[in-house]
Parts: sequence; C-alpha cells; structure tokens
Amino acid sequence: MLAFHVPEFRIEPLSRPELRKDPIIDRWVIISTDRLGRPVEFVEDGPAQPLARCPFCRGHEALTPPATYVSPNEESWLVRVVPNTYPAVRGRTGRVAAATGLFQNAEAAGLHEVIIACPHHEGSLSRLPPLHLAELVLAFQARLRHLGMLEPPQFPVIFNNQGPAAGASLEHAHAQLISLPIPPSLMAREWQAGERYYRDQGRCVFCDLIEAERSRGERVVEESDRFIVLSAYAARFPAECWILPKRHQSHFERIEPSAVPELGEVFSRLLRRLDRGLRQPPLNFYVHSSPPFAAEREDYHWHLEILPRLTGIAGFEWAADVNINPVPPEQAAAYLRSIEV
Amino acid sequence: MLAFHVPEFRIEPLSRPELRKDPIIDRWVIISTDRLGRPVEFVEDGPAQPLARCPFCRGHEALTPPATYVSPNEESWLVRVVPNTYPAVRGRTGRVAAATGLFQNAEAAGLHEVIIACPHHEGSLSRLPPLHLAELVLAFQARLRHLGMLEPPQFPVIFNNQGPAAGASLEHAHAQLISLPIPPSLMAREWQAGERYYRDQGRCVFCDLIEAERSRGERVVEESDRFIVLSAYAARFPAECWILPKRHQSHFERIEPSAVPELGEVFSRLLRRLDRGLRQPPLNFYVHSSPPFAAEREDYHWHLEILPRLTGIAGFEWAADVNINPVPPEQAAAYLRSIEV
Repeated sequence: MLAFHVPEFRIEPLSRPELRKDPIIDRWVIISTDRLGRPVEFVEDGPAQPLARCPFCRGHEALTPPATYVSPNEESWLVRVVPNTYPAVRGRTGRVAAATGLFQNAEAAGLHEVIIACPHHEGSLSRLPPLHLAELVLAFQARLRHLGMLEPPQFPVIFNNQGPAAGASLEHAHAQLISLPIPPSLMAREWQAGERYYRDQGRCVFCDLIEAERSRGERVVEESDRFIVLSAYAARFPAECWILPKRHQSHFERIEPSAVPELGEVFSRLLRRLDRGLRQPPLNFYVHSSPPFAAEREDYHWHLEILPRLTGIAGFEWAADVNINPVPPEQAAAYLRSIEV
Repeated sequence: MLAFHVPEFRIEPLSRPELRKDPIIDRWVIISTDRLGRPVEFVEDGPAQPLARCPFCRGHEALTPPATYVSPNEESWLVRVVPNTYPAVRGRTGRVAAATGLFQNAEAAGLHEVIIACPHHEGSLSRLPPLHLAELVLAFQARLRHLGMLEPPQFPVIFNNQGPAAGASLEHAHAQLISLPIPPSLMAREWQAGERYYRDQGRCVFCDLIEAERSRGERVVEESDRFIVLSAYAARFPAECWILPKRHQSHFERIEPSAVPELGEVFSRLLRRLDRGLRQPPLNFYVHSSPPFAAEREDYHWHLEILPRLTGIAGFEWAADVNINPVPPEQAAAYLRSIEV
C-alpha cells in the first residue's frame, strides 16, 4: 500500500472532491485532496505501526463521527457504520456531468462510509463466525436501501481491503461504501453487457453462466442450496472467486432475510479456504449489484467478487487492461475444494 | 511487487499460455504458468536481492536467448532486445477466439521480448542521456515494424516497469514488448472511442485535446517543436503525464527519424522532472499506438502514458474502475514545470 507522500510538493486542498471523465474513453477518476491526511498503520517497506488507539474498536466510538447504522445497538454493537473522516466523496447535492465536451466533470457528491466489521481488534474477516458475516451482509443491505432513497440518484460501491498490499490502511477489519452520482465505469460496462446479452439471447448472462459452470463442474468451488462459488473463468488474480445466488436476483439488498445466514456461511467458508490455502493473502472483495434506486431487472444478477491480490499490476496491465494470471482457474478450484473448512 | 508463491499449492504447467475473455464484459486475461519460475531481485517486505550475475549487463549475453535486435552491433550494443525467458505469451500460430459463447479463449500466441535499455547496470531511465533514450525509441520502432509484418496479425504492447512497486522484478532498466493475437482490451476501447469521435465530429479526439490543452495552458508541462507533455486531465495517479506529437500521427513507429532525438530529449526531461520532483517514484510507461499492420488513420493518435505509481489500488478501484487520485492535475503540472532539469 502506497500513500502519496512528497513533503516538498505542497498541495492546495480543493474545496470539494471532483469526478473527471477521461477525454478519450468512458473512464472516471476522483480527484480528492481530502485523502492526503488519513492515518496509515501500514507503511511501505516497514512493519505495521498500529495507532495508539484504534478508532474502530468498541469503546473508542468518540474517535469517529456519529454512526449512521449500528447493529444491534450503540452500546453493544457488532457492526457499526460511520462516515469516513478522510472521504473520497462529499455531500450529495452534486450536479451531474455535462453530456458533451472533452473535459467532463461532476462534483464527487456522495457518501463515503466505513462499515466496521466487528467490535474487537480483528484483522481478518475469515476469523469471524459465519453468523457475524451475516450481520455484515445485513449492514450492507441497510446502507444500500438507505442510498436507494436519496436524490439525486446514488450509485453505491461496497468494497473491502484486507492487508496492506490490498490497499488497507488500518488493520481492524472493515468494509467501505463509496457512492457516486454517476455510474461507476466498470459497473456500467457490466450493466450494459447484461442488457445486450438479454436483448440478443432473451436470458440473463449470469444465469446462463451458472448453468454452464454447474454442468462442467471444474470451476465450482462449492454450492449451497441458494448460492454457488465459482473460480472465475477469466480470473485476473490467482484464485479469484465469485459468489452468486443460483436463482436470478438483480439486487444484493433484496436477498430475503432467511437466506442471509446461508450467504454468511458460504462467504465464511470461502474466506477460510483462501486464508488456509493461500497463507492469508491480501484480499479485496466487492459487491456488484443493480443500482438500489432501480426496479428489479431480468438482465443483471448481483454477485460478490473476491480478489486475492497475489500478483502485482505492472505496465502491461495498465497499458492493455489485460491481467496476467499464473494460476489456471480450474487448478485453483480443485485446490480450494481440497482445503478443509 | 508480489510474485505468486504458495509452495503447498503445486501448479501443473500448461502446455501453452491461454487468453480468456470474461464471460460478461470485453476484458481479456492471460493464464500463463510460464511466469511462475521467473527470478525476482525484489522481494516483498525486504531489501532487493540482486542476482549474482545480471542477465542484462553487457558481457553477460550468454545468460539470455540470442538477440532479436541489437543497436548498433552485438559487441558494443547500446540497446539489445531478447526473448523473455519466462514469457506470458508464446509462438505465433494461434487460432483467434470464437466470436460467440460464454467461454471464449484463444492461444496466447505472440512475442514476449525484453528491450534492455542500456549496457551498464543502471536502474533508472532518467539517468540515461537523451540520445540514449532516442536509441530506445528506435528499438521500439524496429520491433513494431517487425511485428507489423507477421501473420496472423499481432497487437503489440510496449511497456516499462521501474521499481518493485511498479512491477519490476529485475533492477537493470528494461522495457518489454508483449504482442497478442487479439486487440488488447483497453487499447481496443481507445481505438473505438477515436472512431466514434471522428464519426461524430470529423476530427481526431487527440488533436482536439491538444488544441484545448494548449489554449488553457494549466496542464501543459512542456512543449517542444513537435511534442507536448500534458498532465492528464483525468489522471489516475499523482502526476500521470502523457507525451503526444503535436501534429497528427497514428503510428509510433512512423515518427520520422529526424524527430526521434527531440522525443528522446522531451522524454528524458519528463523522467528527470518526475525523479527529482517526486523522489524517484515507482513508474510505468507504455505506448498507445495504432496496430502496426494497419494503414495510417485519421482517428487515432499515438501517445506515451507515464504513470508514477504513488498511490495503491484497492477494492474500490477494482470494483468500479474509478481511481482515486489525491493530487489535482493542474497542481501536478505547475509543480513539474517548477522542477529544474
């Protein structure tokens, strides 16, 4: 994890973070000077330097802004959501970008929240009980539902960074939510691809993928009644896995409550397989789902993508957007199946 | 820089590397077990461990396969190109992917070469004389011209990794060339965007960008007679810069020889600004150009993109393909202009 640090380059804070679209292609970036001041426990080329008082531990609530969600209550919370003190986005009154011109931008207006995964100082989600992960899923759902009500429409991204090489700056397990006033570049590409496939084939591409993977079997890591874990066919990283609901469902926050403990169980088993099989790899995961303000849709299917960050990203990947993965996904699936959990 | 290393997971070598397309979107990956054995001088969480004999130093030619290009000659070469011993792609007789179906793939058939930038053990391109960088440009051009002749058509990517955090595994300065039998995902998106803009506006989007940036001035780092250096409007990393020819030109390898020394000079000055201003940052650069087998085109304009890797890539970026950059590009441009070179 690298944090920008060049003392002789004095950066003037922007009054507001800004979204900018690349002049050539449909790729957005956030320019946010607010990120410069954030504390990091992990420094490059050195051991972790834990903060004297972890702001995410129970009992240290005064170190964070007031919670926007707690479960079950403020005193004995298991999961707690707070605004990020060093946000990448701010406010939510932003104007949306102009539709034309080379220099398109928009106020980076949205929420940036930290979803503290547990009250005690634990760095790995794989060591939380499955039912605790179900609590985390409920927190994700509650925040997505809240965002679905806001105006102007918000496009939320829920993600997690575990380990400094995966971009974590603090050790205590936490996910994050960043919402944007514009469709996030990659999610928009997936939504459009789902639309196109549905128009051409009359079916959900993810439903077809699940059917094809189940009939082949070689990339299936595990199945429960309602969920399937796949070793991704075109995995960008060693042992990249996706969790999908077997029945079509467009929105993560609309998983029925009775299915949430099962998702916690499946997710926990996958995290334990990865931790045991791959020596606690640095890890990112994120939710790809339909915009929460939108109606159910037949052409998109929510899923979780889990990326063990076991290979680096170099010039070729930035030039081409083609990752090089040294681990065949079929072998990753067989290996993960062999790990006892 | 992370290299995959989990000894208890024994990976069966593939007979050939494979290209796979994501089942949902148009994004390719290379699955290549050949990459597993490569030596690394940089290890995670530790000091560099230089190889006893650097295979890239003059006098150690026996440690590499025979050269595919030397300049000016084998005995006193300044730039030398050799096949990569741990290639991501191999051969060049690959069948191209099927056009339909969820599991599209292709043989990863192409060249993977190392372009050794200098005969002595030097880690930073910024310390080479400008005329030496011109030699490097000539080597890039020669290999692109060679690839333009091959059948089936090849799509080359020329790139560089400097510093372990940017993905370099060996210290001695070198660029690389990987060619694919299919259009690299991101370059295809740029070519399509250029086509669309040309259809709509009747002009090259890069020519319009250069005109707009010159009239504003705030993101221009420097200009020479023929080239311009821009701090990218939607920079993904702090001080991301692009070098473009001011007159329209679709192919990097068609830069007229008389202009190559000037490009070496401009490139060298930019590298020195970045090294002095940003404390020798980890760095990637790459060439975005038209396919070398193709005719001149009015709708695409070659350029070099230089990415100082001063911020990490975490879950949000993988989820959304939206980078968070804490440094406003206008401030980066002003700062780089202020660095004496």
